[in-house]
Amino acid sequence: MADKTIAVIGLGLIGGSLALALKGFEGYEIAGVDVSQPTLRFAREHGVGDTVTDDALEVLPRADVVFLCLHPRGIVQFLSEHRGDFKPGCLVTDVCGVKTAILEASRVLPEGVDFIGCHPMAGTEFSGIEHAFAEMFLQSHFILTPRETSTEEHMALMRRIAGYIGCKDVVVTTPEEHDAILAYTSQMMHIIAVSVCDDPMLFTCKGFEGSSFRGCTRVAALDVSLWTQLFSMNAPALDKALGELEENLHAYREAVRSGDLKLLSEKLAYSAARKRQMDLEGPDLLE
Amino acid sequence: MADKTIAVIGLGLIGGSLALALKGFEGYEIAGVDVSQPTLRFAREHGVGDTVTDDALEVLPRADVVFLCLHPRGIVQFLSEHRGDFKPGCLVTDVCGVKTAILEASRVLPEGVDFIGCHPMAGTEFSGIEHAFAEMFLQSHFILTPRETSTEEHMALMRRIAGYIGCKDVVVTTPEEHDAILAYTSQMMHIIAVSVCDDPMLFTCKGFEGSSFRGCTRVAALDVSLWTQLFSMNAPALDKALGELEENLHAYREAVRSGDLKLLSEKLAYSAARKRQMDLEGPDLLE
Repeated sequence: MADKTIAVIGLGLIGGSLALALKGFEGYEIAGVDVSQPTLRFAREHGVGDTVTDDALEVLPRADVVFLCLHPRGIVQFLSEHRGDFKPGCLVTDVCGVKTAILEASRVLPEGVDFIGCHPMAGTEFSGIEHAFAEMFLQSHFILTPRETSTEEHMALMRRIAGYIGCKDVVVTTPEEHDAILAYTSQMMHIIAVSVCDDPMLFTCKGFEGSSFRGCTRVAALDVSLWTQLFSMNAPALDKALGELEENLHAYREAVRSGDLKLLSEKLAYSAARKRQMDLEGPDLLE
Repeated sequence: MADKTIAVIGLGLIGGSLALALKGFEGYEIAGVDVSQPTLRFAREHGVGDTVTDDALEVLPRADVVFLCLHPRGIVQFLSEHRGDFKPGCLVTDVCGVKTAILEASRVLPEGVDFIGCHPMAGTEFSGIEHAFAEMFLQSHFILTPRETSTEEHMALMRRIAGYIGCKDVVVTTPEEHDAILAYTSQMMHIIAVSVCDDPMLFTCKGFEGSSFRGCTRVAALDVSLWTQLFSMNAPALDKALGELEENLHAYREAVRSGDLKLLSEKLAYSAARKRQMDLEGPDLLE
């Protein structure tokens, strides 16, 4: 058995993909933990993790790194329940899309157990280990929200992990900044997608949709429990982003209604120039 | 020289791609027409069209099919200016994203010149011949809005063209239905994208964006003149779709603000189930 272990707690879409992507990293054993027997069976049959078990206590005492890949409230609960079970000196981290509440919850950990919040900006609209794939993190951002006391050694380890699983870059920030920006770049995109799908025209529009519609609505087929938690655990920031969107949308609606082509054209020139200036790269649309 | 000719009027992103995709179709000569000398030079150097010219009158008298690939108001103007120049018995069609105004404008054509409105649901956020590519239409919908008097022969020809350039299917509808639905599936997606880019957080969010953000905002880098025309020529339908969106977004915002997790979760379950039921296929995201 390897003398170093990374535990992946929760082998869903992200945890399963992470366990696959980490395979072979610096000689670490990748130990998967999940409470679902069908998930464990799938993991064994498909080599997700070098070892798998339903008992976290089998793994935690020897784990040098623990990736918590549960839903946000599951992470909070796991930290509280297992606060005494981590190996002294180990690094605990996670993958979830809110960070302030998670860093707050990590305060239950004893001194000597480090915590670095982590959010790989990757995913699909599916869930479950059967949709996991090792390439999920390729060209994604790997966001870290360390504690003030997080060690350089652990930060360097996280950077090597990011590189190994194929991330494009590592972005270090505070939990508060992460949550304010993610309300805009991620959570609001999901609210837009579900809102568009609430339109009565949804089913009649089949046959009339192109890549812009598919790109905008893809994530509407979301994991309800996960996103209920993400939205509610970041409600003030999300509310602020949605308020801004309502204003900007309404200004466009007014410009369309006004029949003032000069105004509409100027607004579009302004927004299109902003988008071009932003110039995002990344794995994207095929068409 | 071939004894049958398809004229492509306007060699921009769509016209250029169409000329490339049509190459070799049933022995037709593909004759490209554009008023821009740089565009014509590019077309000659890259084989966009079997022949190219800046003079529509060189081509119209022999063209059996005329694809108008100009901006909407350019199509209206071309139809009016050249109404007497089309070959008797020919088929005139177009590729633009509004149909009621175009079918209306086609009434200037003399008897014996057929018109079928056409909208291939394909495109990218770029413009100009240098971004054209023959594969643009692969797996796209090919929407037709014929006149009542359009001939079966011409409809069959359009279906063969759709198949040749790689479209997934042919959807036949009325101009009014096309415009009502496209306000939702296409124009509203572009209004959402530009509205999201008007948020002050746009530039600070770089490094924190994933595929949902890229998918939603990609089309914000739009062709300002084209989209000003599309929005304004379909303003009532677009206004209606935006009103529906405002209501649906606001209901989600209220659910987030309320702190009522049961309400939020039920709303998400409803919308996500609608999206899954819709089950769109199509060329899509790489991740």
